[in-house]
Amino acid sequence: MLPLLNILPVIQILGFLLILLSLLMTLPVNLLMFGDTPDWLAFVKSASICCAVGLLCFFGAGGKRRHALKQRQMFILTVSAWIFIPLFSSLPLLLSDLELSVTDAFFESISGVTTTGSTVMSGLDHLPGDILLWRSIMQWMGGIGIIGMAVAILPFLRIGGMRLFATESSEWTEKAVPRTNRLARGLVASYLALTFGCILTYWALGMDLFNAVNHALTTVSTGGYSTSDSSMGQFDQLSILFAASIFMMLGGIPFFLFVRLLNGQVQPLLRDQQIHFFLKFLFLIAAIIAVYRIWNDGTFPLDAFVHALFNVTSVVTTTGYASQDYSLWGPLVVVLFFFLTFVGGCSGSTSGGMKIFRFQLSILLLREQVSRLLHPRAVIARHYNGRIISDEIVASSVAFSFIFLATLAVVAAILAALGLDLVTSLTGAATALANVGPGLGDTIGPAGNFQPLPDAAKWVLMAAMLLGRLELLSVFVMFSPQFWRS
Amino acid sequence: MLPLLNILPVIQILGFLLILLSLLMTLPVNLLMFGDTPDWLAFVKSASICCAVGLLCFFGAGGKRRHALKQRQMFILTVSAWIFIPLFSSLPLLLSDLELSVTDAFFESISGVTTTGSTVMSGLDHLPGDILLWRSIMQWMGGIGIIGMAVAILPFLRIGGMRLFATESSEWTEKAVPRTNRLARGLVASYLALTFGCILTYWALGMDLFNAVNHALTTVSTGGYSTSDSSMGQFDQLSILFAASIFMMLGGIPFFLFVRLLNGQVQPLLRDQQIHFFLKFLFLIAAIIAVYRIWNDGTFPLDAFVHALFNVTSVVTTTGYASQDYSLWGPLVVVLFFFLTFVGGCSGSTSGGMKIFRFQLSILLLREQVSRLLHPRAVIARHYNGRIISDEIVASSVAFSFIFLATLAVVAAILAALGLDLVTSLTGAATALANVGPGLGDTIGPAGNFQPLPDAAKWVLMAAMLLGRLELLSVFVMFSPQFWRS
Repeated sequence: MLPLLNILPVIQILGFLLILLSLLMTLPVNLLMFGDTPDWLAFVKSASICCAVGLLCFFGAGGKRRHALKQRQMFILTVSAWIFIPLFSSLPLLLSDLELSVTDAFFESISGVTTTGSTVMSGLDHLPGDILLWRSIMQWMGGIGIIGMAVAILPFLRIGGMRLFATESSEWTEKAVPRTNRLARGLVASYLALTFGCILTYWALGMDLFNAVNHALTTVSTGGYSTSDSSMGQFDQLSILFAASIFMMLGGIPFFLFVRLLNGQVQPLLRDQQIHFFLKFLFLIAAIIAVYRIWNDGTFPLDAFVHALFNVTSVVTTTGYASQDYSLWGPLVVVLFFFLTFVGGCSGSTSGGMKIFRFQLSILLLREQVSRLLHPRAVIARHYNGRIISDEIVASSVAFSFIFLATLAVVAAILAALGLDLVTSLTGAATALANVGPGLGDTIGPAGNFQPLPDAAKWVLMAAMLLGRLELLSVFVMFSPQFWRS
Repeated sequence: MLPLLNILPVIQILGFLLILLSLLMTLPVNLLMFGDTPDWLAFVKSASICCAVGLLCFFGAGGKRRHALKQRQMFILTVSAWIFIPLFSSLPLLLSDLELSVTDAFFESISGVTTTGSTVMSGLDHLPGDILLWRSIMQWMGGIGIIGMAVAILPFLRIGGMRLFATESSEWTEKAVPRTNRLARGLVASYLALTFGCILTYWALGMDLFNAVNHALTTVSTGGYSTSDSSMGQFDQLSILFAASIFMMLGGIPFFLFVRLLNGQVQPLLRDQQIHFFLKFLFLIAAIIAVYRIWNDGTFPLDAFVHALFNVTSVVTTTGYASQDYSLWGPLVVVLFFFLTFVGGCSGSTSGGMKIFRFQLSILLLREQVSRLLHPRAVIARHYNGRIISDEIVASSVAFSFIFLATLAVVAAILAALGLDLVTSLTGAATALANVGPGLGDTIGPAGNFQPLPDAAKWVLMAAMLLGRLELLSVFVMFSPQFWRS
């Protein structure tokens, strides 16, 4: 085991995060100016508990330190932060008058903070404003957490080919601290700018301010919680769906490119190969679905295209809104959405899933294979986004895909052992691991809800959401005996 | 385009193969000694056509040559042989009194020769003996074709990591011809020995000779055609199911190890890491299913285990027999069989699918990743079966898995666009690409039949069976412009 001393800096940072969390917990009541806030006492209590525990951890672990974390400490910090933050975030739900079970409260907060967006709560349209706003804030907070993790921690940990996105700021040396701080400030600024831009756009297009804020928080974070059981279907307005598609796409793009944009560098954003592929893919699949629907049901072309683009973007960016029950659009659409669940957005964004760049690396690998079949002695250098890609990066990207699919099989088998049918088990496992939101089938489909599942299945899904959010390997590495050897 | 001259040796070999095919076509009538052979005329006609076309090709292309084929010619030969042999094999079905449509006759012969075993024919129990025997012979013939291809051609073509199994005999130099011939004789001898062993075992356990021959032909080739709509369920006898499991396992093992066994080398067979993993995997999954059924339904333990082992072995070796409708054994079993459809047996065997060694290489890669996360500077050599595994082999194995899953998505989407539901599209695509046989769901499940599918879907499935049998890349490489450049 690691000596206790090494854990102290981790506890300290967790304490700091809990103090931040307690501040966020006061937001719903403050923002609504004690209007639609029947649960204000629950929020005050939760914030107090969080703050107290946070202060205890922060000062109990020995005050302010300036040492950079070692690699193993970073693993432990990352994993424990993603467990404790959702745990404490469930307090307002538990202490409110909603009468949620402990399982359901945890499910809602884990699904929220991981920006999955699967919900066990129904009758959303009649819930008090403070609870709805808290659900949205959890997702927004999760979103910035993921970006920070993807840009600052994962490349350093060499997980799943993310080293491809290592920048100078990924070196956690003392020297790099000012640079890292600058990057962090840039990320937060971009995230805030996007959020406010989204609020204003929704508001301008006719949403009331409450809905505009809620949906902006869950759009930019590609979370997908809504204020209605009919999700974005409550706004039957193509302009809103189109705007939401654009902001989901922005949420699915590497955020460090926004930071560069803030510094006046436009080219990296416009030239990024991952973004090109991502956008082409979204529009291609949306076009296929639109043509299919126009052909099959005679849907009006503009409707068909905007709804297709919205729902495809929602699933691929792992947001999880729905504008209609797309599982009724015909068998081709069902099969396409099954596969779309796996794809995910770009790395370094708020989205989950397998991520676009891993598919691009696989395609590179495949092209190389075909060339090598014909010219066995040719030397081929792989290029991606202007860099030469080492074997190590390809191998770790591919290892990620393998562990993703293997975990999917295990999770689906456990869900089935708990009595869920084939489609629910498969798509439930996929939607949780990829942090998407809805699955397919009668229960957990886009028109359904995770409420009817047995408690055991909900716990399995929570574990899968956390695994997916932590890019799997950062959890599995902690199960290796090597990790705990000194 | 390749100049015409280069195609001539390919046409010549195809002619030779057609002459062999015409000899096999006389077998059903001869073996049954003109007994249950109402379609004898169809067989005579088909054999004559085959023989005539074969002779024309063989001598038309310029008589006997002794030059070794170049790589591109081998690609063309491999792909065209796997198209023309099934095409000609459908003749007896077309010319018989069965009144099969052209689509159905092709489906049955492609499914047969690729040893997939999906069938569009029902009422098998009442079909004449000659037709049933021909279905079995097609599979047996396909089986030896695959072994030959896997041992002699694919390693040379560097496809999908198969180079891992390259032996001296994979070098197609003039010098290597005697060695290749010796290996080929050994393979045929092992295949014949296994077949006769299987016939005798089935016969000894109580099958009549006709059924023993038919089922031995489709067991050893891991094909899966049976003489009854209830498949192996017609023999409700645990000893037969157990014996069939053993022979399917033998059919799923690398055949060059049997050749070594014939040469007195027992160790390579006993020590093979792929075989160890394969057998452990089969018994583990069978045990899980047996325990689940004992627990859930109170099935008698011996029954539960033998039926589980039989059906798991049948799907993993891509045979495709069923002893019962296992899709009624509960949701866990359905999900497990969904994933089992992809696995496949060992390389160099008659089985299809993704193959055990590719999973083993992925696990190696994953372990390496975890080690590298913790010890970034460590140098790790990968070992498999006592060899050091190069990056190139891992890359091509992984590229195969990617193209397999990408093709699966495309095939499933096309099937869904043709109106098939999610489960039928997904499992239909998987079962065809992996050359298994049955899918899941009401139509193509273990108790079902491919007859009700629309003709277009049947053609798509035929293409998928051929792609799977040809390890995908050997077909896709022919679509690359590089291939046709001189």
